[in-house]
Amino acid sequence: MFYHDNKLQYKVRVDKPNPAFANMLQQAIGGIEGEIRVCLQYLFQAWGSRGPQKYRDMLMETGTEEIAHIEMLATAVALNLEGAPMSMKDEMAKDKVIGAVMGGMNPRHVLSSGLAAMAVDSNGVPFNGSWVVGSGNLAADMYANVMAESTGRVLATRLWEATDDAGMKDMLAFLIARDTMHQNQWLAVLEELGGLKGVHPIPNSFPQAEENQEFNYSFFSTHIDAKNGANQEMANARWAQGPSMDGKGEFSLVNITPQGGIPQLAPPDPRGHAQKEQMTGSAGGGLVDKVKDIL
Amino acid sequence: MFYHDNKLQYKVRVDKPNPAFANMLQQAIGGIEGEIRVCLQYLFQAWGSRGPQKYRDMLMETGTEEIAHIEMLATAVALNLEGAPMSMKDEMAKDKVIGAVMGGMNPRHVLSSGLAAMAVDSNGVPFNGSWVVGSGNLAADMYANVMAESTGRVLATRLWEATDDAGMKDMLAFLIARDTMHQNQWLAVLEELGGLKGVHPIPNSFPQAEENQEFNYSFFSTHIDAKNGANQEMANARWAQGPSMDGKGEFSLVNITPQGGIPQLAPPDPRGHAQKEQMTGSAGGGLVDKVKDIL
Amino acid sequence: MFYHDNKLQYKVRVDKPNPAFANMLQQAIGGIEGEIRVCLQYLFQAWGSRGPQKYRDMLMETGTEEIAHIEMLATAVALNLEGAPMSMKDEMAKDKVIGAVMGGMNPRHVLSSGLAAMAVDSNGVPFNGSWVVGSGNLAADMYANVMAESTGRVLATRLWEATDDAGMKDMLAFLIARDTMHQNQWLAVLEELGGLKGVHPIPNSFPQAEENQEFNYSFFSTHIDAKNGANQEMANARWAQGPSMDGKGEFSLVNITPQGGIPQLAPPDPRGHAQKEQMTGSAGGGLVDKVKDIL
Amino acid sequence: MFYHDNKLQYKVRVDKPNPAFANMLQQAIGGIEGEIRVCLQYLFQAWGSRGPQKYRDMLMETGTEEIAHIEMLATAVALNLEGAPMSMKDEMAKDKVIGAVMGGMNPRHVLSSGLAAMAVDSNGVPFNGSWVVGSGNLAADMYANVMAESTGRVLATRLWEATDDAGMKDMLAFLIARDTMHQNQWLAVLEELGGLKGVHPIPNSFPQAEENQEFNYSFFSTHIDAKNGANQEMANARWAQGPSMDGKGEFSLVNITPQGGIPQLAPPDPRGHAQKEQMTGSAGGGLVDKVKDIL
Amino acid sequence: MFYHDNKLQYKVRVDKPNPAFANMLQQAIGGIEGEIRVCLQYLFQAWGSRGPQKYRDMLMETGTEEIAHIEMLATAVALNLEGAPMSMKDEMAKDKVIGAVMGGMNPRHVLSSGLAAMAVDSNGVPFNGSWVVGSGNLAADMYANVMAESTGRVLATRLWEATDDAGMKDMLAFLIARDTMHQNQWLAVLEELGGLKGVHPIPNSFPQAEENQEFNYSFFSTHIDAKNGANQEMANARWAQGPSMDGKGEFSLVNITPQGGIPQLAPPDPRGHAQKEQMTGSAGGGLVDKVKDIL
Amino acid sequence: MFYHDNKLQYKVRVDKPNPAFANMLQQAIGGIEGEIRVCLQYLFQAWGSRGPQKYRDMLMETGTEEIAHIEMLATAVALNLEGAPMSMKDEMAKDKVIGAVMGGMNPRHVLSSGLAAMAVDSNGVPFNGSWVVGSGNLAADMYANVMAESTGRVLATRLWEATDDAGMKDMLAFLIARDTMHQNQWLAVLEELGGLKGVHPIPNSFPQAEENQEFNYSFFSTHIDAKNGANQEMANARWAQGPSMDGKGEFSLVNITPQGGIPQLAPPDPRGHAQKEQMTGSAGGGLVDKVKDIL
Repeated sequence: MFYHDNKLQYKVRVDKPNPAFANMLQQAIGGIEGEIRVCLQYLFQAWGSRGPQKYRDMLMETGTEEIAHIEMLATAVALNLEGAPMSMKDEMAKDKVIGAVMGGMNPRHVLSSGLAAMAVDSNGVPFNGSWVVGSGNLAADMYANVMAESTGRVLATRLWEATDDAGMKDMLAFLIARDTMHQNQWLAVLEELGGLKGVHPIPNSFPQAEENQEFNYSFFSTHIDAKNGANQEMANARWAQGPSMDGKGEFSLVNITPQGGIPQLAPPDPRGHAQKEQMTGSAGGGLVDKVKDIL
Repeated sequence: MFYHDNKLQYKVRVDKPNPAFANMLQQAIGGIEGEIRVCLQYLFQAWGSRGPQKYRDMLMETGTEEIAHIEMLATAVALNLEGAPMSMKDEMAKDKVIGAVMGGMNPRHVLSSGLAAMAVDSNGVPFNGSWVVGSGNLAADMYANVMAESTGRVLATRLWEATDDAGMKDMLAFLIARDTMHQNQWLAVLEELGGLKGVHPIPNSFPQAEENQEFNYSFFSTHIDAKNGANQEMANARWAQGPSMDGKGEFSLVNITPQGGIPQLAPPDPRGHAQKEQMTGSAGGGLVDKVKDIL
Repeated sequence: MFYHDNKLQYKVRVDKPNPAFANMLQQAIGGIEGEIRVCLQYLFQAWGSRGPQKYRDMLMETGTEEIAHIEMLATAVALNLEGAPMSMKDEMAKDKVIGAVMGGMNPRHVLSSGLAAMAVDSNGVPFNGSWVVGSGNLAADMYANVMAESTGRVLATRLWEATDDAGMKDMLAFLIARDTMHQNQWLAVLEELGGLKGVHPIPNSFPQAEENQEFNYSFFSTHIDAKNGANQEMANARWAQGPSMDGKGEFSLVNITPQGGIPQLAPPDPRGHAQKEQMTGSAGGGLVDKVKDIL
Repeated sequence: MFYHDNKLQYKVRVDKPNPAFANMLQQAIGGIEGEIRVCLQYLFQAWGSRGPQKYRDMLMETGTEEIAHIEMLATAVALNLEGAPMSMKDEMAKDKVIGAVMGGMNPRHVLSSGLAAMAVDSNGVPFNGSWVVGSGNLAADMYANVMAESTGRVLATRLWEATDDAGMKDMLAFLIARDTMHQNQWLAVLEELGGLKGVHPIPNSFPQAEENQEFNYSFFSTHIDAKNGANQEMANARWAQGPSMDGKGEFSLVNITPQGGIPQLAPPDPRGHAQKEQMTGSAGGGLVDKVKDIL
Repeated sequence: MFYHDNKLQYKVRVDKPNPAFANMLQQAIGGIEGEIRVCLQYLFQAWGSRGPQKYRDMLMETGTEEIAHIEMLATAVALNLEGAPMSMKDEMAKDKVIGAVMGGMNPRHVLSSGLAAMAVDSNGVPFNGSWVVGSGNLAADMYANVMAESTGRVLATRLWEATDDAGMKDMLAFLIARDTMHQNQWLAVLEELGGLKGVHPIPNSFPQAEENQEFNYSFFSTHIDAKNGANQEMANARWAQGPSMDGKGEFSLVNITPQGGIPQLAPPDPRGHAQKEQMTGSAGGGLVDKVKDIL
Repeated sequence: MFYHDNKLQYKVRVDKPNPAFANMLQQAIGGIEGEIRVCLQYLFQAWGSRGPQKYRDMLMETGTEEIAHIEMLATAVALNLEGAPMSMKDEMAKDKVIGAVMGGMNPRHVLSSGLAAMAVDSNGVPFNGSWVVGSGNLAADMYANVMAESTGRVLATRLWEATDDAGMKDMLAFLIARDTMHQNQWLAVLEELGGLKGVHPIPNSFPQAEENQEFNYSFFSTHIDAKNGANQEMANARWAQGPSMDGKGEFSLVNITPQGGIPQLAPPDPRGHAQKEQMTGSAGGGLVDKVKDIL
């Protein structure tokens, strides 16, 4: 269950409101690299957690922290929008203001939310629940989390570069620090689960003998001139020679060739109403006859 | 540039067509864990690759391979749909057929595609371009790729469990093997980039001195009874003590407390047409006056 | 800021796991009538709240409660999925099991989440951030909230009807009760803001003299035989006679007639490359000439 | 069935075309507050209407009117786009034009529609059918409609503020008036259905004795310092004391405490291929054994 | 402007309600091949029509007719849902009913709409405004319309095959007939615009001399063994020899070869925070230096 | 299966990088008229092709070519973004730069992709798999392809108009030429399938005697004053008289009148929890009674 107070996790100060920067901040709220995603991702992983209890507990701790990050960013958006131009009337003649209003600003910050944050990204594309990854496999989920905190920290450093508002830079320096911690935190779980050699290939519970043994450590080159040695650079790369990272195989280079034949589909089922010409072609009329029998 | 031949990368055989399994296979085509996603993800990462050429080259190799995986799965879907019931007439009385048709099957496999694969997942939700991650940061992208191949291999092993068709199991065993390779391949890049200590925190090009130094290696406990020691388990965990995984800090446990005050937003801008009652509250009428002056 | 403990707001017990009911419950998690929506809606309204502080405070209270509702439902989904059939092998021959697996179940509960809840509705359509309404107008937002709790309670009563699992019925009876409270709660704000006569038309801060005075309380009949009295029933209805609900007008019935002429658009701009035939029609060639001059 | 003529419901005049305002108007066409939504919402409610015929009839009347509103706005968009800059060539040097073209304009108005309206909002996000609410419960639907007309009128007044084009202001004054009427119209139905006391809790056909009687009129405070009296303001609020708005209960304040225990999920089903480490934890190994037996 | 009456364009009779068929019919309402799409497509094309008035008038006629088709199908859905099982209680034991409820039915027909049609397709995926095509080029639009009526008629014939309800078959036979007419109608416009030779290449207003003259009538073979004659079948095909369909060129076969070199992107901008290792590669360090100078 | 080399199909040169034009180019990558769509559309049509083999082969040839077009455009986007302003700091004072940055640019090109192309359109709306049309009917698919290449060529000519960069114009002249070829190519298939008279109505495999014979070649006028001759222009049009384009009927004009009665739905099922008032109306209480009996 959840509780709140009325204070922010970290101070949010905007010295010079900037509606275009407000729009940029939306990426960190409702974007695929944003806080709604990690918040729901960690909480859903916790709620569906099967296995040792401590991972569930940890996911709850950090999922709850992330709600406060959405709150901080939503507050920052609202503050950056204060005093924003809300019309195209008088301002029409003054270039600088128009640039801010009609350019970098999201018109829905005026029209739809009345100068407040929304659950969208910096293109106004709504947050999408498909981004919330929880696979039921703890190691896969940890990689999903490392990835989210990595693209999230990249985003936060770009926002830090994009502003010279001291308050915003301070807030972002806090969020960047939290992303550092969270990257390390999920990596700690992966170490605890056995590191590269213990964890991979994910899932490690699938009997590896069942996978195709010929191509599970082969780097396939699809280069059209592979046989002429065009892929020499690839042949020498780490991923084409030496022991595999999971310690369970040896990398090699394979010039790709088709292992399967030309696919043959039956002609269309008459009840699917393809064109007549599709049903009288040479390739296998068997099904048509069979289906006619059934009808 | 790209070339093709008419053969499959690996053989696709369906011994016993099953339209419900055809639907399940769609998850591996158009789902967030599927092949369209990794195909476009690796190709877009290649096309936008900045820095050493060899990573671009490698991404092209594997991105091209993935097109052939979509092709294999699309073929498998078409073959599993052959002979599928296309109506609810006669079958109405026969339970077993109805179960397959109206149950696990995707009705759009009959209605929209005429017994062929579509660019959707196993719920019929269309493939979404937002899933194609290419951040411009090589390490973040490699984690995105490890994560995609991890959830992808988990998916493939579940499909392997869900069928006892020998042809399908053989095809999946091949795809599972390729996922093993691809997990290892992206990890090899991360090793080459310096491993955990060299790579993290991502991005490693942001001057870490600029991030908040107080909280960048602190595990925050949001547990309501944290101060009563309810989070003892967390205090002893790997992520709350010892050196951080990136070797640049020391983990600690911090019971979370608000560092920021109560946020204060200005009253609504009159031109945004909030209710009148919102503009006459006690909290800071300054902006209203200011805006009125401007009007 | 937010805190948590590890317990549920209300007990969640599943006596007889049912994967098809698990899928139905997803509507209450990730559907447009569901708990992610109200949770984010109340929190975003709070974070963007301008005007009297107490409404922000109240929205925080209830938004925080809703996180616990998502948690309860996610737990219920996971429990309903336990023991679910994960394959189509042996079961193929046994109708009853197949019915549950391939029919009402969401295949992604097996393939994507490993028997856990996801941020999707009962069709597998992902939660969409566009559903999070916060307009900046307190009264409009309260109606959005009453509407959400009304469709939410309708949904919950339908779920209650759809199950005879005593644990699930008890959990739903709790959630239904909370929806009763929340409907009343938002209505209390509307009363406090002045009730129908004080609140409407929303926004009440727009000078009503600026709206068209001829048609602001007219019920328009678009019935093709309106002039022949076909709409007698409408003429006698409450919304076509008597004082308006906001007390600011008098309802009337108007048979609709076009007040505007036939729209005339200029011919296509040549640089937009319409077909040539579109540019040589009779209707107004002026712009073409004008644009040619500019080029 | 439906009929048309070639005239507009109300005149649409644009004195000074403005492509950025054309983009803003898209919010009123394809946005969640827009006219496609209300049009389809009223028509779908009519087509699915069960119960007294007159509500179906009324919904048809107004749903049909709304098609004409889309038409007016689409015409206004086309007119505002006339003469819009279609290139970035010569204009590159002239700031003011570039501001309009590359700033507030939607590039797809040039690239995709050839200077005409599209079925998207002011961020270019396509209209989404999930916004069309028809629950089958008349009272819930009426609130959905009041809410749509409330956020719709807020939007229209903001558009009215954003322009000083006399023609556009006149058109918007008409649409604002219609929103006034429609708010009143749906409220009239709610009055007819019994007003607050007769209508709530929605649905009123669910036997209220079945809902949890302990918490159906309790305002839950989730404030972390609730027990220390931090929520005194809430205790005194209208929604925490006095008779409920539906007349069926008495409001009270309850400091929230968990009523449910710590959730316990079974360990992962082996066929779901979690990591091995998840299956050997202490918490309940029962299912693993059970599933193994089944396999 | 628009008008209505309360009758249907054509009779809708359901002899034997079938909730699974109700779900299938949704494809014809809210699917990409469905009636909401063509309705909005024709109306938006009309509202944005530039050039000869008669095409606008015709589009209005048929766009208005399509609203009545949505109405017919929505009515058919509601009738097919009557008496549908709304719970999983008693039915649990009875296979046949469960098959219908939990299988082919859309659970949201019970949970969300109360046995009425929704603006979604047969997978429950909401109607999407991006499907509404109006390019501003009349010929391109006519092809969009022919295509919509072609996939629409294919869909309708498949629905006709899928049912043996005489009422439904009669309704579908009417809709199939209308699709026949509409295919012919849009083709008549294309003939009037000049037929293949006059219309193509679309847009015919672009000066064809500006397009690349070397490859505008060449069929490119991407077959990897093209030079070995593997594409003999293609060489002899109609699209690789003889006059082009637009009469403006001569088809030829070209074995594809890269005409462009290896793309070279500058190294990452430091403020974009790629990994350090990406900025020190050999390929062109120029920009890094340049950007550092700017900073 | 697929192969690649590292060169581009055609040279991509950007003389003067322009981040706003980079955004416009996204429409040709991830938009509904763009190259991801045609690439996947042709490949999925090939992979699901049933009937004569040569159409499958041709679709593979061209589908493969289109991957190279995405590559060219993605390269063009990256090159146009080089040197793009990545912050709002210093530039704030300089109008021209701000115009480019905050105006026409996509902020996600900085924040999310680090100056590279993404799988989105020029509004940042992600590519959507629903746009990939493959109906299983070859003629319908050919029209879908002609339509895609028509709107695609219209888009490309508009992009050509929007730039004066010689490199970009040259690349677009190549892509425009390819669209010319591809329009002709799909038309050649339609000719081969029998031309208008042989192909239509699509599907030509449905026994046309089964469609309604009264209205299959009637142009319906929905004009409200049709009977007063308001639609004289329509009566004389090609689509209302003379032989139909498919040679199988004679066009006529019909003033639309309702052929169906007033629809009658049963009252709500009590378990669906409509309002009580809906269940006691006069219209047909039969079902309520029936359902009560069942309960």
